[in-house]
Amino acid sequence: MKRIYKAHILFTKQKDHFEVYENGYVAVDDSGRVTGVASCLDELDSEGAEIVDFGNRLLIPAMNDMHVHAPQVHNQGVAMDLELLPWLQNYTFPEEAKYADTRYAERMYRRFLHTQWLFGTMRSVVFGTVHTESTRLLMQLYQEAGMGALVGKVAMNRNCPEALCEDVKEAVEGNERLIAEFNKPDALVRPIITPRFVPSCTPELLQACGELAKKYRLPVQSHLSENKSEIAWVAELEPDSENYGAAYDQYGLFGQTPTIMAHCVWTQGKELELMRRNGVMVAHCPTSNFNIASGMAPIRTFLEEGLHVGLGSDISGGHDLNMFRMLVYAIQVSKMQYQQNHDKAFLTLPEIFWIATKSAGSFFGKVGSFEPGYEFDALVIDDEVLHPDEYSLLHRLERFIYLGDDRQILHRFCRGKEVPEPR
Amino acid sequence: MKRIYKAHILFTKQKDHFEVYENGYVAVDDSGRVTGVASCLDELDSEGAEIVDFGNRLLIPAMNDMHVHAPQVHNQGVAMDLELLPWLQNYTFPEEAKYADTRYAERMYRRFLHTQWLFGTMRSVVFGTVHTESTRLLMQLYQEAGMGALVGKVAMNRNCPEALCEDVKEAVEGNERLIAEFNKPDALVRPIITPRFVPSCTPELLQACGELAKKYRLPVQSHLSENKSEIAWVAELEPDSENYGAAYDQYGLFGQTPTIMAHCVWTQGKELELMRRNGVMVAHCPTSNFNIASGMAPIRTFLEEGLHVGLGSDISGGHDLNMFRMLVYAIQVSKMQYQQNHDKAFLTLPEIFWIATKSAGSFFGKVGSFEPGYEFDALVIDDEVLHPDEYSLLHRLERFIYLGDDRQILHRFCRGKEVPEPR
Repeated sequence: MKRIYKAHILFTKQKDHFEVYENGYVAVDDSGRVTGVASCLDELDSEGAEIVDFGNRLLIPAMNDMHVHAPQVHNQGVAMDLELLPWLQNYTFPEEAKYADTRYAERMYRRFLHTQWLFGTMRSVVFGTVHTESTRLLMQLYQEAGMGALVGKVAMNRNCPEALCEDVKEAVEGNERLIAEFNKPDALVRPIITPRFVPSCTPELLQACGELAKKYRLPVQSHLSENKSEIAWVAELEPDSENYGAAYDQYGLFGQTPTIMAHCVWTQGKELELMRRNGVMVAHCPTSNFNIASGMAPIRTFLEEGLHVGLGSDISGGHDLNMFRMLVYAIQVSKMQYQQNHDKAFLTLPEIFWIATKSAGSFFGKVGSFEPGYEFDALVIDDEVLHPDEYSLLHRLERFIYLGDDRQILHRFCRGKEVPEPR
Repeated sequence: MKRIYKAHILFTKQKDHFEVYENGYVAVDDSGRVTGVASCLDELDSEGAEIVDFGNRLLIPAMNDMHVHAPQVHNQGVAMDLELLPWLQNYTFPEEAKYADTRYAERMYRRFLHTQWLFGTMRSVVFGTVHTESTRLLMQLYQEAGMGALVGKVAMNRNCPEALCEDVKEAVEGNERLIAEFNKPDALVRPIITPRFVPSCTPELLQACGELAKKYRLPVQSHLSENKSEIAWVAELEPDSENYGAAYDQYGLFGQTPTIMAHCVWTQGKELELMRRNGVMVAHCPTSNFNIASGMAPIRTFLEEGLHVGLGSDISGGHDLNMFRMLVYAIQVSKMQYQQNHDKAFLTLPEIFWIATKSAGSFFGKVGSFEPGYEFDALVIDDEVLHPDEYSLLHRLERFIYLGDDRQILHRFCRGKEVPEPR
């Protein structure tokens, strides 16, 4: 049935300002798509529509987490004082190895999804583990929850513990089992080809990943240029590649199908040009980049070059699944860059909101805006505790982003359906 | 009556590691001071003591906010995209002018105190406004709440709107009225001499502030070396001072009595040496330094030089009154400095916890630790929602700091007394 939602509606059609409909209306059809947004009911076709009035609440696009390691939910906020290598060896890899056990996986993945739900993240681009069965389980849980996700069975076969290594044949077979089950047109939950990163994949495995992506027209995710020692390592492993990105590119894993690369902290020059040319999206993970001391990604430059950018929590390098915190951190990173160089303006709230919603959402199709044709992914924000009567609508949204938490998220919608609390 | 509290007790006696008492005990006497902490009840004098068992909860020192503008509570999380000057002129100063009205002040100050209470901040070093009556009100509210604070009537008489200017005589008289009423030995709430910063105080006003501090043996707070244009401005206004700190020093406002200076982002060389020699404390405000694009304060250097450091929320330059977030930001700032220079190790969790508790608390006397003789300022943390059974006590604390919020703070104590929710 067609529904029309009434609330104070805010979204970013363009990157530099908010569309604001005070006491506005958004109409959503049976397929979960927006058919119109307006200040007056008269402007919409309301015949036969159920009208749902959210009163003084804010209605905004839902959050998209463009880079997150679901099996790291247990390590959130733990051992943050360690350097990258001991942290991987003592926390990250041992935790992922536990996902050989689907009972453990189910308990943790339910916890993970529940937290995403709490914070209003309705779409995600997710790393699972190397384990096919646990990854299938995660995809099933997303389906049951009614939340959108591109979920990757992680491919890795070198420079990692024995328990997480898989040979190329197993990797291909495991992926193809998931593809057969989940690669349906228009499905909310779909597979994504996921080489962990160049150092943990042999050329043969990268080749196989590229072939899978091409054969099944599947998107690709991985890590790129997160820190300098990693970049040096890749240069050593792939001496014929002009840069880290080119190492993926030669295997068909860099924009040949829709591709998103996490971090890109040190991406510049020819790598940047290759991303631009190939339309590779950046998943900017500012909290993680702080916590792991990776650096500050040049997001303003990426925007100027026309790259698509989204935001990622990257737990457990990042500690927080609340994507609204990621907006704040992304602004703060850009302000610190501005302080240090003064050559680029810092990111403003509408810009980062656009990045987090419409720009990120483009990786899933028409997601992240309330323009006609967009899938209705939305949050209803009850900011009563933040004294809404004292502020403009834009300041109410800003205060919720800076000061709010899950307690203010009253309803969550994904592709037009309200998403109830996952069991 | 003497009380003994049983819980998992964690605190930082020294700066580089936690004292951990699993199922430990801390004894508190009638005066609110710790008389002992131990793993077994037998090790304490428990005769006649009431024993309060907090079970599986964590018991930690309460938070201290060492730099906060109480009248900016309304501006929290608002207009964060503005540069410093338009933000001061359009938001900060107009808001402070409203505090001429004590009814407005009461409403906002109650909101402010309630938020501090929620987040477990039991001691604060606070800027009020120039208004004597509203500042008295703030002090009364702290007294009623049973929370500790050094509260400053702000001195300012140049480079500010007419409504916030006060002549030197009024400034002195207003301060003396508050001093007569509140400057009691051992009082939880006391005055602090508060020149806003050099650019907003004439030499005569700074002179008068220094004399007040000396005459009444009162502590001093102000701002120091927050950003480069401010430093250049001070150099212009006080051409005879070798540096910004020296400008305060010549008026007896730089360690002649206990002094805390907010920010010190660009403090180095002779200014740093003067702070060290005079024992001036730094209030590090990492969130504010990000939001206003001030820079990254060299906290590791300050520690190496033996300076005392505490943490400040600095709302509304900072957006958050939750001091636990400030710990996370302070670690992240130091990690970014580490990434950029690699010359100094980043701050670890025990170090930043020590800074936020025992180091900061030293400005109030013996506050911020559970060693015998310390005033019992404490929080009881119920981290049930963070799956405590799966983690060590140290990781439980780390997870609460990184992931928790006010919902996990079950009890708050200041100087031995439980602090109920302020009305």
